[in-house]
Amino acid sequence: MKKYAFGVDIGGTTVKLGLFEAGGEILEKWEIPTVKDNNGAPILPDIAESIAHKMKQKGIENSEVEGVGVGVPGAVVGDGYLVSRAVNLGWEPFDVAGTLSEYLKLPVRAANDANVAAFGEMWKGGGKGHENMVAVTLGTGVGGGIIVDGRILIGANGAGGEIGHIHMEDDETEICGCKNKGCLEQYASATGIVRLANRRLAKDAAPSVLRDGEVTAKTVFDAVKAGDPVANEIAEQFGEYLGKGLAAIANVVNPEIFVIGGGVSKAGDILLKLVRPAFDKYAFAPCRAAEFALATLGNDAGIIGAAALILKK
Amino acid sequence: MKKYAFGVDIGGTTVKLGLFEAGGEILEKWEIPTVKDNNGAPILPDIAESIAHKMKQKGIENSEVEGVGVGVPGAVVGDGYLVSRAVNLGWEPFDVAGTLSEYLKLPVRAANDANVAAFGEMWKGGGKGHENMVAVTLGTGVGGGIIVDGRILIGANGAGGEIGHIHMEDDETEICGCKNKGCLEQYASATGIVRLANRRLAKDAAPSVLRDGEVTAKTVFDAVKAGDPVANEIAEQFGEYLGKGLAAIANVVNPEIFVIGGGVSKAGDILLKLVRPAFDKYAFAPCRAAEFALATLGNDAGIIGAAALILKK
Repeated sequence: MKKYAFGVDIGGTTVKLGLFEAGGEILEKWEIPTVKDNNGAPILPDIAESIAHKMKQKGIENSEVEGVGVGVPGAVVGDGYLVSRAVNLGWEPFDVAGTLSEYLKLPVRAANDANVAAFGEMWKGGGKGHENMVAVTLGTGVGGGIIVDGRILIGANGAGGEIGHIHMEDDETEICGCKNKGCLEQYASATGIVRLANRRLAKDAAPSVLRDGEVTAKTVFDAVKAGDPVANEIAEQFGEYLGKGLAAIANVVNPEIFVIGGGVSKAGDILLKLVRPAFDKYAFAPCRAAEFALATLGNDAGIIGAAALILKK
Repeated sequence: MKKYAFGVDIGGTTVKLGLFEAGGEILEKWEIPTVKDNNGAPILPDIAESIAHKMKQKGIENSEVEGVGVGVPGAVVGDGYLVSRAVNLGWEPFDVAGTLSEYLKLPVRAANDANVAAFGEMWKGGGKGHENMVAVTLGTGVGGGIIVDGRILIGANGAGGEIGHIHMEDDETEICGCKNKGCLEQYASATGIVRLANRRLAKDAAPSVLRDGEVTAKTVFDAVKAGDPVANEIAEQFGEYLGKGLAAIANVVNPEIFVIGGGVSKAGDILLKLVRPAFDKYAFAPCRAAEFALATLGNDAGIIGAAALILKK
């Protein structure tokens, strides 16, 4: 009987691994370093060795393992083929799932890490109970993952849910990492909030606690909570961009729920309050029913979602 | 052995019906009037009677029919439950597929008519060979249908692919049918093109053949083909809005292909040329690979897509 599965989340610095019961409970989690020498050639052998070691330690046979799910920081299609360079790992396109499956003699499925984290949030986190969900990750950039009828929306070449580069602003002069100008990510990420803050602070001399130290997404939201009017303006502008962007997404995929995670989401419920007015203003009426929730799995979303690739039926 | 299926496309004036071979060939097509008396109560009984009559005429037994697919002008979820009022028919929410299945003692599946037409274009039309497709219907309004991995994206409450109301323009003063301002539909529909044309013509006295008669989407595109510079400006503005809107959609669902239909698409290939520059400018690089094609099934897309609900495996 299949009693176990493994979830693997490959990052640029560490690989997170988890041993799961078939029901989805985490039994154990651990990390190994991501060795990027030789274009990341050691990464999959290291993962295979770590899983084999854990199985031996626990006395788990191959016949008891349903499979291994893997989140990869790159564009992945099908059951686990990397179709673009994964720059953080040094990987060129190849069959990630097939290769790891060869090493382990176990079924392997791999997907893009943001999509996998979204899948985890649907399975066990902020989106639990929903089958049509958009996960929004507000970190250094803006990422996302879309779940339609309980399945990851992969897209033609693995870029489904790459919502950070929706064009929002014709007047932008700074260039986004994607080489366009005016992307959602330029306003709704941690660095985007700093951009909005610096522009607002430069506009006039209105007093604000933000003038006293380093401006970060955290200091902006802390200032909002402390009642700083300038910080509030900045946060409202952020909410206008993000709400308008999410309204466009809602008009395309009509999700039941948006689940917001990433570092910026540590600001908490205030985030949902900031986004809702613009969302309600710009979303098509039938799509306005979407709920908003915060992600709850934190750094475990990756390994949980990876396990879900194997265990969620 | 199941040799046949029926495809039904319910419109506000007529119901189109088709008898199909299991392989997807249309054997016969016909229409009946849509009788909207008594909140459209006769519509399904009329369809059932028409199908039963056709089966008797052709000597087809129930056991030979795989099922009946139906396109409904309203928001439909699951296998055929109408979840909002279908104003064109007078229908309140009810189980369309279940009810027709009771009448006919045959399997029935129903879906939103725009989604069904998209499904048809994927099966036999402009999107043939693709499993990830966005159909864009440029008619009086702008509608759409999204196919992900060969399945219709229905969404939480049947509004998946309702792309006409993506917000495009903050400065719009006229109100869209959806009560918002600045929707894609206000610029990229037949009426939207007329709006852009009238605004351009009012701006100055630049000579244009468009000043000589009624301005319609057709006269605008005819004038473009005849080399009218003012018409060309209007068409480029239309292309800018539509290309930018489709770029946002591409950044969400990463389709292999956009298939453009509806009355405006009669303008032909020029449409695709107008859309491409803005699409390429605003789409995230990995999503830029999307192809553009014209819809090819015309008014048959509805019955073909409806049959596909039953026949496409």
